[in-house]
Amino acid sequence: MDRSIDRNPELKLVGRDARTERTVVRLRNGAAFGAETLAICAGPCSVESEEQIDLTSSGVARAGANVLRGGAFKPRTSPYAFQGLGPAALELLRAAADRNGLAVVTEVLDPRDVRIVARYADMLQIGARNMQNFALLREAGESGVPILLKRGPCATIAEWLMAAEYLLVAGNDQVVLCERGIRSFDPATRNLLDLSAVPLLAELTHLPVIVDPSHGTGLARLVEPMAFAGVAAGADGLLVEVHPDPAAAVSDGQQSLSVEAFGSLMRRLAVVAAAVGRRLPATRIIV
Amino acid sequence: MDRSIDRNPELKLVGRDARTERTVVRLRNGAAFGAETLAICAGPCSVESEEQIDLTSSGVARAGANVLRGGAFKPRTSPYAFQGLGPAALELLRAAADRNGLAVVTEVLDPRDVRIVARYADMLQIGARNMQNFALLREAGESGVPILLKRGPCATIAEWLMAAEYLLVAGNDQVVLCERGIRSFDPATRNLLDLSAVPLLAELTHLPVIVDPSHGTGLARLVEPMAFAGVAAGADGLLVEVHPDPAAAVSDGQQSLSVEAFGSLMRRLAVVAAAVGRRLPATRIIV
Amino acid sequence: MDRSIDRNPELKLVGRDARTERTVVRLRNGAAFGAETLAICAGPCSVESEEQIDLTSSGVARAGANVLRGGAFKPRTSPYAFQGLGPAALELLRAAADRNGLAVVTEVLDPRDVRIVARYADMLQIGARNMQNFALLREAGESGVPILLKRGPCATIAEWLMAAEYLLVAGNDQVVLCERGIRSFDPATRNLLDLSAVPLLAELTHLPVIVDPSHGTGLARLVEPMAFAGVAAGADGLLVEVHPDPAAAVSDGQQSLSVEAFGSLMRRLAVVAAAVGRRLPATRIIV
Amino acid sequence: MDRSIDRNPELKLVGRDARTERTVVRLRNGAAFGAETLAICAGPCSVESEEQIDLTSSGVARAGANVLRGGAFKPRTSPYAFQGLGPAALELLRAAADRNGLAVVTEVLDPRDVRIVARYADMLQIGARNMQNFALLREAGESGVPILLKRGPCATIAEWLMAAEYLLVAGNDQVVLCERGIRSFDPATRNLLDLSAVPLLAELTHLPVIVDPSHGTGLARLVEPMAFAGVAAGADGLLVEVHPDPAAAVSDGQQSLSVEAFGSLMRRLAVVAAAVGRRLPATRIIV
Repeated sequence: MDRSIDRNPELKLVGRDARTERTVVRLRNGAAFGAETLAICAGPCSVESEEQIDLTSSGVARAGANVLRGGAFKPRTSPYAFQGLGPAALELLRAAADRNGLAVVTEVLDPRDVRIVARYADMLQIGARNMQNFALLREAGESGVPILLKRGPCATIAEWLMAAEYLLVAGNDQVVLCERGIRSFDPATRNLLDLSAVPLLAELTHLPVIVDPSHGTGLARLVEPMAFAGVAAGADGLLVEVHPDPAAAVSDGQQSLSVEAFGSLMRRLAVVAAAVGRRLPATRIIV
Repeated sequence: MDRSIDRNPELKLVGRDARTERTVVRLRNGAAFGAETLAICAGPCSVESEEQIDLTSSGVARAGANVLRGGAFKPRTSPYAFQGLGPAALELLRAAADRNGLAVVTEVLDPRDVRIVARYADMLQIGARNMQNFALLREAGESGVPILLKRGPCATIAEWLMAAEYLLVAGNDQVVLCERGIRSFDPATRNLLDLSAVPLLAELTHLPVIVDPSHGTGLARLVEPMAFAGVAAGADGLLVEVHPDPAAAVSDGQQSLSVEAFGSLMRRLAVVAAAVGRRLPATRIIV
Repeated sequence: MDRSIDRNPELKLVGRDARTERTVVRLRNGAAFGAETLAICAGPCSVESEEQIDLTSSGVARAGANVLRGGAFKPRTSPYAFQGLGPAALELLRAAADRNGLAVVTEVLDPRDVRIVARYADMLQIGARNMQNFALLREAGESGVPILLKRGPCATIAEWLMAAEYLLVAGNDQVVLCERGIRSFDPATRNLLDLSAVPLLAELTHLPVIVDPSHGTGLARLVEPMAFAGVAAGADGLLVEVHPDPAAAVSDGQQSLSVEAFGSLMRRLAVVAAAVGRRLPATRIIV
Repeated sequence: MDRSIDRNPELKLVGRDARTERTVVRLRNGAAFGAETLAICAGPCSVESEEQIDLTSSGVARAGANVLRGGAFKPRTSPYAFQGLGPAALELLRAAADRNGLAVVTEVLDPRDVRIVARYADMLQIGARNMQNFALLREAGESGVPILLKRGPCATIAEWLMAAEYLLVAGNDQVVLCERGIRSFDPATRNLLDLSAVPLLAELTHLPVIVDPSHGTGLARLVEPMAFAGVAAGADGLLVEVHPDPAAAVSDGQQSLSVEAFGSLMRRLAVVAAAVGRRLPATRIIV
């Protein structure tokens, strides 16, 4: 057949040939990236208050998510935009996740914050703007904590894999890639979700890959169909923005699902996942 | 919920609000675009010989395709590349399709050729490079023959819909849109398949939309996962390049499936389609 | 030095090595593309009326332009936008140009219109959207009339040269390339003017190249600095939109210069041109 | 005239209306960005050895540069590529610059390195990949040291100005913007130098802007014409890669000029600069 997908010999640790088996990244609550059961990460763009994160956390857990996402430190284009609640948000995230049996993934922006974020989170997110922030990659790599590495908005697949190589070289092989859309000329969507990255990465690396249809489109009504498409293309999980009241969200409300809409998505997603031999996480029993 | 997908008042005929029901484009053999049953168009990039088109035609019909694609007039970047067999290819296409109960879709490049192509084909393809060839759009619109309008490689969704508006203004409302990938900065794939266009178009227009994962990726191994993803995202059909011997194809061999690989894709696709409430065409009984 | 600019062996007629000398394209009034003296093409986006084209024509001639541009057949994204005055505009253009000693360049959209446009124009423009309209390229190539071939909005340099190769293969070596901006992700300008194309083309082909800072930026205030930059980069001429009353223009008013602003541009441009060893055309004596 | 260039009210400190006069950033050796005399920054991609930086430094000073550039900490796509000599390179840079009356600009990658880099450099470079590294921007802003803020490879003009706003909010108004090319679909050049950014920024901000034709094209033979074009478009200076032996450079040799080629560029640039009312720095007398 075609031998058209060239492998890069510089991907010494990340390349497909570096391991005989595909990597599965497992978090403490049992959530796994790269297994038959998908990893479903859901939560608000920013942690705004205890009530907001609690409502979201219990809601997404009931719907079948197994990882809680939420921003404590927010990278914002404007210095005048909300920058996140910082360390206080980390505590709220941890508590809300623990109450609902969820793991926590949250973004770290500054190499000096890796230690504190790692104290609260099960997984560190390296955001799209920081994909080639090599100081941050080194520090995150040395932490040994599982990493969610988002694709930069104008990163080629080759550059993205090289960024992951920085993490593995630093000794951390618990790395998950997250496609979140790249920049295109068309203003119709916030970013252009590149789902072909999913099967292409399966050829090029042993690392798992998940899809973020929220940032990938920027439009709440496109999240469900693109979540289905991502899973049909072979993604190992999803990252979805969910907010108890999207219209009132401090950031990214336009692309956030309500808890109800997320629940509906999950019910329909289970059928799509089954069609390609995958399962959703078992729903948590919330006491 | 979000009202974030703005509708363009200039889309007088193509816009979602122009009709109460979604358009279903039906060809003479019963193939339909926009119905519960998907339209599956398959065949070689170029018609090369009677044997090649016969083998492909019977093979894709057996696998469940209902439309035969194949290029008679080829738009080629280089004047020294194979330009297609022209009218002779139209006869071969028609005969091969008729023997297998298929409809024919083939590209027309020159407004002066619309009449002859329409004599043989059930559907005229306006290729990506000609999406804004307004002389061709007018002639194709006036022909009244169903049109497959491919997205230009750097066309916005808004420009694409405006190109369709040219066809409807000319009196032809039998128009199907085909997402086939746009140009990006990443050389990893030939084009960047924009699957978010599928649900976005469902918001913006009543016209059906299909997906071409062959041109959309340029890599045979990505065709199956992206076909699944396209259908999961809501596409009304697929356009897939199939060749009896991809390695020997005169053009686009790298992205063509063998007849066997296409058969395998179709069997698995049936399950994905069912998961989103769609069906594949009934397989033809070939005598 | 660097040998980093690879030459394409398929550019048999267009490639730099195909000729010992650079091509100079000369029009009947003496305007030349590729000579020490620059070719300055100026005029409105669309021919709107006899008065409009006469005012522009005499104005740009006085300021030192030697070619009158103006659209008779307009390619428009929307079928509801002004499509040009057609053949009537060709007569107005010719008459206005003749009264002022100018040559005429105007766009042809349809292969069936090549003959009529060639009857009135000294140079046929193939617009950006039609760069790969191969039927039009063949007809224009066979006409033998000098061609201005604009770069497609998402054409690579390699594809653009291949489009020019179609013209030369058809027997027409009177071809001038026009950089007019490509598509980017930044909405700050209408297109992204790629001035590096100018010196790159000088390495790759013997054909002359001019720059269109009007479409290249879409903003009247950027036209003058980008015209200076284009000439400094080595362009053989300019294509500038000028309108007697930009605010009232039927199309492209936002990027059009007034006759006065164009005159001011030309006076300052003469100094920049001299700095790189070029000259502006001698100003016409208008009786 | 046109009022088409919209100003962003969030640019409270960076916007054109925030100051009555344009900002001029002056370094200790008298080099100025934003003055009639241009700032010419030249030097190698990476500091490789004492001999290399000395040869380059004296060479570029003789040719008329007034700022020495050179990388001590290198951001590299691959973790296996040369990462720079680090602090040792800072000492070499400072010494070489001092011997030749030059200022020093060098990149800082990590917020924890701002202090040490500021001890040696006159100006801190924030590289393209770090344009939205907000932790680094804050630290650099608080340092009070003049900053060269490169445009991110897929940053819009609006996002770039917002990144500069972070620096000014942190108390540092000694900020120079550097256009270095953005990402496009055409592999013909390494990046696509967006010279229209130069006059557009002059409308939008009071900060000076310089152009980097070396990264902007990636091809040594395009550096001179694009340097001319940048100055003709109104740039306040240039950043040019110069190496005593480009073919032997550890990084970026393909886009580096030899000392001789740089000298030749400067002699011809003086004429272009004069044509737009600018001057080159006075050549240093080297004892």
